[in-house]
Amino acid sequence: MVIVGELINTSRSSIREHVDKRDSGAIGDIARRQAEAGADYVDINCSEAQGGEAKAMKWLVENVQAAVDAPLCIDTTDPETMQVGLSLIRKGRPMANSISAEERRYEAMLPSILEHGALAVALCMDDHGVPETAADRVRIASHLVERLSQAGIAQQDIYLDLLVKPIGVSANDVAEVLSAARLIKEQFPDVHFICGLSNVSFGLPNRRVLNRAFMVQAMTAGIDSYLLDPLDAALMGYFYASRALLGQDPYCARYLAAHRKGLYRSI
Amino acid sequence: MVIVGELINTSRSSIREHVDKRDSGAIGDIARRQAEAGADYVDINCSEAQGGEAKAMKWLVENVQAAVDAPLCIDTTDPETMQVGLSLIRKGRPMANSISAEERRYEAMLPSILEHGALAVALCMDDHGVPETAADRVRIASHLVERLSQAGIAQQDIYLDLLVKPIGVSANDVAEVLSAARLIKEQFPDVHFICGLSNVSFGLPNRRVLNRAFMVQAMTAGIDSYLLDPLDAALMGYFYASRALLGQDPYCARYLAAHRKGLYRSI
Repeated sequence: MVIVGELINTSRSSIREHVDKRDSGAIGDIARRQAEAGADYVDINCSEAQGGEAKAMKWLVENVQAAVDAPLCIDTTDPETMQVGLSLIRKGRPMANSISAEERRYEAMLPSILEHGALAVALCMDDHGVPETAADRVRIASHLVERLSQAGIAQQDIYLDLLVKPIGVSANDVAEVLSAARLIKEQFPDVHFICGLSNVSFGLPNRRVLNRAFMVQAMTAGIDSYLLDPLDAALMGYFYASRALLGQDPYCARYLAAHRKGLYRSI
Repeated sequence: MVIVGELINTSRSSIREHVDKRDSGAIGDIARRQAEAGADYVDINCSEAQGGEAKAMKWLVENVQAAVDAPLCIDTTDPETMQVGLSLIRKGRPMANSISAEERRYEAMLPSILEHGALAVALCMDDHGVPETAADRVRIASHLVERLSQAGIAQQDIYLDLLVKPIGVSANDVAEVLSAARLIKEQFPDVHFICGLSNVSFGLPNRRVLNRAFMVQAMTAGIDSYLLDPLDAALMGYFYASRALLGQDPYCARYLAAHRKGLYRSI
């Protein structure tokens, strides 16, 4: 189980301001707080930065690594920015977020992932878009895993993102995603899954409750990695509780540690 | 999806006091509040009542039916009490909670379930006790479903309780129960599952969070009925959220109604 802290993303206005001002203290602080709260990786997404994405990525990768030891997740759709981000890594093994089965994107992203030995976050979509059914997700996932494997990426270094749609848009999408995860896991037992949480609740009230419930559902189906806000104490509480329930926390040690640290006082 | 309100149980000291004093106002009020909060059935368990269980059951069934229209769930291990409870039903179709694959219990409970056409809550255990593995649960469940079917009870009238053990005692039990539910559902698609929530967290801190997470996990595995405290607003909030996510709440109508009623204000 892997937590990727999602907060350093310039689609959030406060982050964009820190990045545009090159405020290394503020960015370092957000990185540090995420790592302390349990993030195994720190995501960096600066698609909306002043002066260009690649320059902002360079500054962010250098400054976040100065603040924390957690490895980074370089989050971009731009191949140049991916190359810049991965080339500056000096702590641990990064994630490259993301490649997909879209032909141009696949070809453009693969070289830097291979060159830097990054873990590959692979979006389960192709040139026809995001699939509707479990069967289509399984088909695209199989294609991606086989192709990435042939390129030399071990299956345990692949993190599939099954791309759940908002339930307000597509009522059955969660069920299809959970079913796809189970089927893909049978076929490729070493592959990981990664999942963002907030898209599922788009357009509905009480989104945090939906996001937490969706995380618990996804954990139950074998999705083992999450892009989330680790400073959301209730969310992290449900993460530790759910993992303990699934028998993946020997002696409930992490759950009990989270309790002793006071994580559950606010829930 | 069915909610059985669990509060009228004399193992709770306040309830025992109301029952011993024959306080019909207090008992009626608890029944009513549960029904208003979303309970489809009202459970009645009076195994610890003064003057005997069967007498208390008679008083409770009469008084709870005077207070609410929701059907009852007669919850007892005593065949005489079961017979008394079921024979006094005059509103809707009751649940009989519970029969099991223990030989004496099976034989003693079956006649009154058949006589009164009750829905059969069937504990997935036999004379060797509660099973450890998914495979043993599937074996006992198959035996129970086949035997009850032969006795004339339709599969859609059977509610299997897979009897989860506390994770502090048996770390893998939740995983085994979830796996058993999926396997049994493949074999008997019309059978229902019912599940109590609080046993799983026995001996651990922050039990409510574990119970809520377990409910969401169980819903994901196809367990569709719950014996729970419907006055726990957060628990009910996660129930509606989880059902909407699973595509079982068209247009998220119940979820949105719960939101408008203010259920999520306290979460």
